[in-house]
Amino acid sequence: MDTLTIDAIADADLRIRPYAVETPLLEWGILNEKLAARILCKAEPLQRTGSFKFRGAYNRVSRIDREAFPGGVVACSSGNHAQGVAEAARLCGLDAVIVMPSDAPKVKIARTSHSGAEIVFYDRDTEDRNAIARDLCEKLKADFVAPFDDPVVIAGQGTVGLEITRQAKAAAADIDAVLVPISGGGLTAGVAIAVKDQFPNAEIYCVEPKGFDDYRRSIAAGTRQKNEGASRSICDALLMTEPGELTFALNKDLLAGGLVVSDSEVRHAVAHAWRDMKLVLEPGGAVALAALLSGAYEAKGRTVAIVLSGGNVDPHHFADIICNIKELTQSSQ
Amino acid sequence: MDTLTIDAIADADLRIRPYAVETPLLEWGILNEKLAARILCKAEPLQRTGSFKFRGAYNRVSRIDREAFPGGVVACSSGNHAQGVAEAARLCGLDAVIVMPSDAPKVKIARTSHSGAEIVFYDRDTEDRNAIARDLCEKLKADFVAPFDDPVVIAGQGTVGLEITRQAKAAAADIDAVLVPISGGGLTAGVAIAVKDQFPNAEIYCVEPKGFDDYRRSIAAGTRQKNEGASRSICDALLMTEPGELTFALNKDLLAGGLVVSDSEVRHAVAHAWRDMKLVLEPGGAVALAALLSGAYEAKGRTVAIVLSGGNVDPHHFADIICNIKELTQSSQ
Repeated sequence: MDTLTIDAIADADLRIRPYAVETPLLEWGILNEKLAARILCKAEPLQRTGSFKFRGAYNRVSRIDREAFPGGVVACSSGNHAQGVAEAARLCGLDAVIVMPSDAPKVKIARTSHSGAEIVFYDRDTEDRNAIARDLCEKLKADFVAPFDDPVVIAGQGTVGLEITRQAKAAAADIDAVLVPISGGGLTAGVAIAVKDQFPNAEIYCVEPKGFDDYRRSIAAGTRQKNEGASRSICDALLMTEPGELTFALNKDLLAGGLVVSDSEVRHAVAHAWRDMKLVLEPGGAVALAALLSGAYEAKGRTVAIVLSGGNVDPHHFADIICNIKELTQSSQ
Repeated sequence: MDTLTIDAIADADLRIRPYAVETPLLEWGILNEKLAARILCKAEPLQRTGSFKFRGAYNRVSRIDREAFPGGVVACSSGNHAQGVAEAARLCGLDAVIVMPSDAPKVKIARTSHSGAEIVFYDRDTEDRNAIARDLCEKLKADFVAPFDDPVVIAGQGTVGLEITRQAKAAAADIDAVLVPISGGGLTAGVAIAVKDQFPNAEIYCVEPKGFDDYRRSIAAGTRQKNEGASRSICDALLMTEPGELTFALNKDLLAGGLVVSDSEVRHAVAHAWRDMKLVLEPGGAVALAALLSGAYEAKGRTVAIVLSGGNVDPHHFADIICNIKELTQSSQ
């Protein structure tokens, strides 16, 4: 199934509308001046659960056949997908079980369980979360909601792109390029389909943290490439080891290429967004902005939409970032 | 002059449009659920210079007669008005001199001078900033831009209210009440005029920090009341000692009353906005949200617009707030 269409995204748009936030496409004159470009920022931290993940989760969870799956839903995630699925299940009146690593941040555990989901912990080093999830699905008669390699999830994430096209047109903007944070590739695929439907010449770039540029290398090679296991990054939402199978089948023909940013560029982008845009971004949600500010993508003279994909971050980590960016206290507003 | 009309605000709206951000009126299903109300949040931290102050400043500065005032503009402020005036002057190609206290936060000094304004320091304890500003205006042949007691400034701030009415109608919301942070009273007066023009039955409440409730007491008494000098508050943007003369003449017939919040309620609101709304608010910009979350205003069953008025805050102060709110790590998303 590599023929996900704009119709599936338009259908998702209608379905999620009562519960999802139509997040604004924000523009700052000062950022435009600084980059000599027109920059449109899709602010998904303002989305329900603080990231775009709610869109795909709700589109998928709300279609579950209750007779076939009386036990509700099961998902594996330590982060934003967990919160999206848990909240979607709560709104649909379905039970949810989330398989989380036992060392997941307390704040993410608390927020997932706040939506009423049951949490099952596993040990990252000794246990296979997919096996645990499969067993749970069987035992509970529950449906498994994949984080990205599912056409219904991708269609939900594609509503980000659909809104971008609507909002860009309302702002009389003709999009030259879109930069999207990528991990499994569902958000990027959905956004690419929706944007290219309205702006066929727009170039779509995915953005990854250094050491996790499997998607960039895969697009360049034309086949799925893996990351080495030794790398680390502060972008906890973007640490997949290889592209999804379905998402890659879609993205390989849609993307113009991939961009890479360093942790220090990401920290700078998070601090910049805090200070000059007054938005809370998590590191993984800031990579597209980092690509602009660092010059990894040269925006000059172009109209560029970027996706700010999420804002769920530990307060101490965030405090460390905003208090330790020296040049920001001197540089531009 | 106490007959500021909606026409002046509509005119300001056209004038500021090329440079001001039409900030979104944001709504979160989860906040609505929590308060059993419909809450519409006007996000002025997303405004150019990080607060609503740019609106009034640009509306006023852009009308200056260059022949009469070849020296440009002079303003007194340690905070958001300084940044608004400095940026407006930069965009208009006018010189600006800002009179700031010598102990103003370094970050605010840096951001004001970044817009190209010259800064003149004074000693809070021994010098009169108004006398300094008057002397500068005379010497430089410059125009003085007052922070609130000026009808053109008030009309500019009123565009916040005009946008709220447009955006509320687009969202099919019938506004029952509006909560607005108040200091000198210009924002509140402008918002009240604009909102009541479209929603005549809407109740307008101003919100102040504890110990600085001069406006609440003035509205109740029908005459301008002063604050005692001994109080302190973290809301550095809201520390006026008495209502403006012009703003009070407007507000006394427009407001339903005043609400008061404590510093600890404000800290909670700033942390809540950071965690659940992903917006950066400064303490003074968070008082209307604090009034909702604390129950100082009972929103149940109503449609309430609140103004989040600014987001310029020292990073260490912000870090202290988000890292030290215990109940937030356990409570609701």
